[in-house]
Amino acid sequence: MTVRQSRPSLLTNGYFRTDNETERFARRRTVGRREQQSGRGSVMVLTRMVGARVRRKEDPRLITGSSQYVDDLQLGGMLYAAFVRSAYPHAIIKRIDPSPALALPGVVAVITHKELEQWLKGAVQLGAGEGEAEAPAQQEDQAGPPQHELLAIDRVRYVGQPIAVVLATERYRAYDAAAAVEIEYEPLPAVVDPEETMKEGAPQLHATVKNNIAMHTSHQHGDIEKAFAEADVIVKQRFYQQRLVSVPMEPRAVVAAPDPLTRGVTVWSSTQAPHNNRNSLAQALGLSHGQVRVIAPEVGGGFGAKIGAYPEDIILAALALHLHRPVKWYETRSEHFMATNQGRGQVAYYELAATKEGRILGLRAKVIQDLGAYPKLLLLAGLTAMMSVGVYDIPNLSIETYSVLTNTTPVGAYRGAGRPEAAYYIERMMDLLARKLGKDPAEVRRLNYIPPEKFPCQTPAGARYDSAEYEKNLNKALEISRYHEWRQKQQELCQQGRFIGIGLVTYTEICGFGPYESASIRVEPTGAVIAYTGTSPHGQGLETALAQIIADEIGADFDQIVVLHGDTQSVPEGVGTMGSRSLAVGGGAMLLAAQRIREKALRIAAHLLEAAIEDVEYADGKYRVKGAPDRAVTLAEIARAAYSPGLPPDIEPGLVATDYYAPSGVLFPFGTHVAVVEVFPETGEVEILEYYAVDDCGPRINPLLVEGQVHGGLAQGIAQALWEEVRYDENGQLLTGTLMDYAIPKASMLPSFVTDETVTPSPLNPLGAKGIGEAATIGSTPTIANAVMDALAPFGIEHLDIPLTPQKIWRAIREAQRA
Amino acid sequence: MTVRQSRPSLLTNGYFRTDNETERFARRRTVGRREQQSGRGSVMVLTRMVGARVRRKEDPRLITGSSQYVDDLQLGGMLYAAFVRSAYPHAIIKRIDPSPALALPGVVAVITHKELEQWLKGAVQLGAGEGEAEAPAQQEDQAGPPQHELLAIDRVRYVGQPIAVVLATERYRAYDAAAAVEIEYEPLPAVVDPEETMKEGAPQLHATVKNNIAMHTSHQHGDIEKAFAEADVIVKQRFYQQRLVSVPMEPRAVVAAPDPLTRGVTVWSSTQAPHNNRNSLAQALGLSHGQVRVIAPEVGGGFGAKIGAYPEDIILAALALHLHRPVKWYETRSEHFMATNQGRGQVAYYELAATKEGRILGLRAKVIQDLGAYPKLLLLAGLTAMMSVGVYDIPNLSIETYSVLTNTTPVGAYRGAGRPEAAYYIERMMDLLARKLGKDPAEVRRLNYIPPEKFPCQTPAGARYDSAEYEKNLNKALEISRYHEWRQKQQELCQQGRFIGIGLVTYTEICGFGPYESASIRVEPTGAVIAYTGTSPHGQGLETALAQIIADEIGADFDQIVVLHGDTQSVPEGVGTMGSRSLAVGGGAMLLAAQRIREKALRIAAHLLEAAIEDVEYADGKYRVKGAPDRAVTLAEIARAAYSPGLPPDIEPGLVATDYYAPSGVLFPFGTHVAVVEVFPETGEVEILEYYAVDDCGPRINPLLVEGQVHGGLAQGIAQALWEEVRYDENGQLLTGTLMDYAIPKASMLPSFVTDETVTPSPLNPLGAKGIGEAATIGSTPTIANAVMDALAPFGIEHLDIPLTPQKIWRAIREAQRA
Repeated sequence: MTVRQSRPSLLTNGYFRTDNETERFARRRTVGRREQQSGRGSVMVLTRMVGARVRRKEDPRLITGSSQYVDDLQLGGMLYAAFVRSAYPHAIIKRIDPSPALALPGVVAVITHKELEQWLKGAVQLGAGEGEAEAPAQQEDQAGPPQHELLAIDRVRYVGQPIAVVLATERYRAYDAAAAVEIEYEPLPAVVDPEETMKEGAPQLHATVKNNIAMHTSHQHGDIEKAFAEADVIVKQRFYQQRLVSVPMEPRAVVAAPDPLTRGVTVWSSTQAPHNNRNSLAQALGLSHGQVRVIAPEVGGGFGAKIGAYPEDIILAALALHLHRPVKWYETRSEHFMATNQGRGQVAYYELAATKEGRILGLRAKVIQDLGAYPKLLLLAGLTAMMSVGVYDIPNLSIETYSVLTNTTPVGAYRGAGRPEAAYYIERMMDLLARKLGKDPAEVRRLNYIPPEKFPCQTPAGARYDSAEYEKNLNKALEISRYHEWRQKQQELCQQGRFIGIGLVTYTEICGFGPYESASIRVEPTGAVIAYTGTSPHGQGLETALAQIIADEIGADFDQIVVLHGDTQSVPEGVGTMGSRSLAVGGGAMLLAAQRIREKALRIAAHLLEAAIEDVEYADGKYRVKGAPDRAVTLAEIARAAYSPGLPPDIEPGLVATDYYAPSGVLFPFGTHVAVVEVFPETGEVEILEYYAVDDCGPRINPLLVEGQVHGGLAQGIAQALWEEVRYDENGQLLTGTLMDYAIPKASMLPSFVTDETVTPSPLNPLGAKGIGEAATIGSTPTIANAVMDALAPFGIEHLDIPLTPQKIWRAIREAQRA
Repeated sequence: MTVRQSRPSLLTNGYFRTDNETERFARRRTVGRREQQSGRGSVMVLTRMVGARVRRKEDPRLITGSSQYVDDLQLGGMLYAAFVRSAYPHAIIKRIDPSPALALPGVVAVITHKELEQWLKGAVQLGAGEGEAEAPAQQEDQAGPPQHELLAIDRVRYVGQPIAVVLATERYRAYDAAAAVEIEYEPLPAVVDPEETMKEGAPQLHATVKNNIAMHTSHQHGDIEKAFAEADVIVKQRFYQQRLVSVPMEPRAVVAAPDPLTRGVTVWSSTQAPHNNRNSLAQALGLSHGQVRVIAPEVGGGFGAKIGAYPEDIILAALALHLHRPVKWYETRSEHFMATNQGRGQVAYYELAATKEGRILGLRAKVIQDLGAYPKLLLLAGLTAMMSVGVYDIPNLSIETYSVLTNTTPVGAYRGAGRPEAAYYIERMMDLLARKLGKDPAEVRRLNYIPPEKFPCQTPAGARYDSAEYEKNLNKALEISRYHEWRQKQQELCQQGRFIGIGLVTYTEICGFGPYESASIRVEPTGAVIAYTGTSPHGQGLETALAQIIADEIGADFDQIVVLHGDTQSVPEGVGTMGSRSLAVGGGAMLLAAQRIREKALRIAAHLLEAAIEDVEYADGKYRVKGAPDRAVTLAEIARAAYSPGLPPDIEPGLVATDYYAPSGVLFPFGTHVAVVEVFPETGEVEILEYYAVDDCGPRINPLLVEGQVHGGLAQGIAQALWEEVRYDENGQLLTGTLMDYAIPKASMLPSFVTDETVTPSPLNPLGAKGIGEAATIGSTPTIANAVMDALAPFGIEHLDIPLTPQKIWRAIREAQRA
């Protein structure tokens, strides 16, 4: 997505500016390169790594296909599991007959809830990790949330819900046998629509949840009635946030094997949060954490769907533990669509009250979160509520949320989880307001931004924003996108019957959740470094970013740093990678551990240099006597001494440190995105002509990694705006169960993105860094939606729900023309 | 070996006293048992674990056969290695022709030094770990010690030396193919005898080593000439310490697999010191420690032979790394006899000068250490020299050592490594002196013991003994063995033509080597504990002992403690298990880590109990407010709080600690052993009638584990005295290459041991504990030898070299009778 654009630009009639494309392809800076000098010691040539466009440590193994994913694991005597899944959205299970399956060759066992329940020794905790769970929610009343049974007990509530598990000597035999298990159902009426499910008379999913409302919250700030009474203009809109599926390149996969050493179990899982899985598995199986080792080997993407234990994780661990054999399962793509947590799934009603100048007086909103059949992440709607005011200084607020159950696959975290929905609503509202007032959307935004002098800032929605300069960020976006030139060009082209749309959004989001992260560093006697992080990256390039931090902080050779993660035995403490927390929280921990190494290195350097500790400093990659530039030692020399006899008795041998970082607050990255699209009325197609993303995530440890996250996030956010949607029929049958029906984007469907930055450090962590993993997803969906709606303005169309498919646009234009 | 003895005793004409046999079989004390109270919290009933006869945590998995050893590992695409080994003790390799092997089915490659050398990037370090290596040696002059090539380059120097490695798809195919590799040798004259090899004209093994003497040391203290000039009596003896083989139940085994994550290699090895192997492998292959992960899974015994990397370890790692496939090798028993480090192998000349009362004036000694064809542990003779004076206050000393090379398998560490030899020599000398003076051996010893008031004591041999009370220990041994009654009975039976011998020994040894050990403890939110130790036990029961220390120190439930070890990724720092160091050094580290946990637990307890930190104490398993017995919290309650929100900001979340313990000096356990044997002149057979071991290893953390170590050590030491011996013919061909030829003992050949203790804590470590892993081996060989020689005294036989086989005794009696 960073290749040179060869299509002529409408604006310049020349070629696109390419935002220093050449620099992007510049070869990696010579950093941390060790020059061997004929065996007689070595010289370190160090420049600063943090901030450099360092290529990813992870890529050689990924590019050469030598990485090991869960499914690459082969264990002796391994069995394969396949799940029998509900064919009905809502039904009573009358009878399960495993005998036709057991008669098939290679089938070892068919396990239902009846067998499984004997192996469960404690509460079953499915769903999100602590990180996500920590975000506060204004909860008012909450029915005891119903638990997702590991295997359905006597009733199923969505298509794909696991009912039984079949074990066989080969995977295909297990899947064949799963299809042969005979289940007698008594179908019940199902409900799919999140607004219908709340109504009297709707089918009830759980006896403990009245009207299918699992949670209801309500939050007021200021005087919302007065705000609306005094308003010059009021803008209202209903929004629908379609459901999405994460579709990582690697689907979910689990291998579990008994561990004779601990009399527990080792589980390899394609997960974002191995420690959370360890805790859940231990609790469910009545084991200690020390008896459950969870390993996340190479993980091929997660996007939130791989947070938290699934029934399959716990069931496989239980099977390995009690059958004393290794067991493997990995989902088919169809299972991924049916049985892996989906994302989004909201309906929202928004009303904005404003003065005729465009100053917002109040926001009144109602958000209905579709949880699916079981609550996996109850606080989703709370996150939406918390981010409801976006970047705007809105004095009066009233927001109500309903989290409701339907006969569909459960909804959980999906890149952004609650915040993209909020950004979409408020940013669509800003455009609707601007249109109503006949004002430029950029200027209406500028008028309402929370000003820099108000930070840190407590919003009426209950969030505490750490730092931001929205107007500065806007100005940069307007400048690099040549926004005003485009506005003029838009008018000209409209005269020619061409429908250009310009979308602009300033988003913010909440990220960097705690409660903490851990890091350990060991400097080897040669000066090479092995580091352990409690985060569990799955494609983001965190090994590279953490190695950069370590290299700079202690003067280590970047190429000699190995960063390990994802194994609860190697790293007993950790939270994981989710909610854009890895760099800010995990990097913070690594920085603290590195600082401990540096402190100890300085003490050893003082000893080696025969200087007082206060006369020694770390500068330019070496440990030096202040004012005597020649008296210096390298990290390798210090490390050698640290492991050799002759250290002073008050210095512990070795050069090892562990530290934890518990953030004092969450972080709020932000940015302004500008998109220019063209809509073709004859087909309803949308072409994205240009896309500008000016993101502010504080200082960038590695701009290359940040851009990678931004590019991927834009692709995913644009896909929501234009293409992707999970669809059920009115009976609860999944219509989009394969990649033939669910439209994920191809690279050729996307433009060359222009990315830029402003840098507003966070005062809350030692790196000043905020998260960037979800930001571009959050900013891009409303940007594209605003751009398309802007292009459709000449037809008098005010709003269409996403995804803005050609069919939907084409129909809308036809209807508008008929009207 | 602790079963009730059913044979009537000669002494009592009744049944043996059995040293509280019933108590030994008493069921495990109720300790650390958690009593669940209907889900509403729990009550801890704690008694002290340290000192209790707690049954081994390790045993259930070992007894049920569910443990996983290296050979249990099956990896996809794995190849099997077999080594082509030298058939000659000394030869030039003229030509290696792999083609007959390559023509066999399933053979993938034949690798010789030519291929291997391209993969070696750094110095190859084979042999002992740091722990053993730390013991000081008085080195005077040393030729650059020749390196053991991984695969022979152009010359072989012992039968079994690896020349090439064959890889095949099945193990049997690999071994068949190894036999098919054709090697053209040019035989050279070989030398086997360690005294012959030093002589002019002997075949020279290495160009860099003159007269095959790899090391020569000489050490004097006092005026040895004067001592001998003034002596009333002088006793002289030449001793031969035969070579032994360790013969663990599990032979050596290695699996290596490429690791895509680090671009390095993971090696599973049956080793005592995984960190040492990691370091050697990294250095040889040019990788960082972080790229080499060594895992010692369940290890079935080592006895010193599994310390340090072997050629096979490095070769397998290189193969996996460069062929990108997992590779497995495990040795046959014959390979174990040929290619695994052997033990002992010394000749010694001792002279003792004494007064007519028996007071020793001086010791003059020369020790010749047979190193085999390559030096694996150069300091062996130095350890013998350092322990040469034993427990005796000998004012004048002269000791010279020669470490020499012969065309035999290399010699390395074997249970005791240098110290059993020293104990054997001096304890045989004490008996020879007593006999010359016509005095009781016990009384001659008593006269010469270093007295308690001299401790800590710098010996003339250069050791610093930490603590001992030899006479107290002797008295206990004399008492429980009814030594004096036996002396009388011996006389009576002699009159009847029955030859009873009484052997008595007071040994000491050096153990508890540094440089350090690491330990980490994590208390889980439930109060369960996972601990990591840098030592790497292989059968000793250390998981149990460390769990006892943890349980007492922090109030954890013993049954909920898991102790992990043997994986360099989980425990980056460690030295290993060798030299009786695990408990004293590894336990010291664990105690320090536990104390850190306790300190933090007290801080959290103070917070929970709303008390000042100085008012809170840990007592009887709970954290309590002083003087208010009801205000108390358990570790589980503290742990739950440690991981929950609401901790004061100055307390880091979690309950985790890591610490290191670097001992300030080595330790000297000691003990007195008494054996009563009967020799049958008609057959030369020896029957051990009674065996008493009063060992002083300081406080015993778990007496059951100590006794296990003592029983095993006695078996092994007695085996050296009576049965085991590696034999070569004069051409260097191994005669004892299988268990048909090498006589390891069976349980039925051993008596019921009576063990007892005195307790002299060491002032050098926080537990006061000394090592016990090697002590009984060290004490028992001279005890049995002294007993047999005592029984042979009526025949006028003064000394026979061990092993005292029936044939040797029968011949000696015949010769004595002829004389």
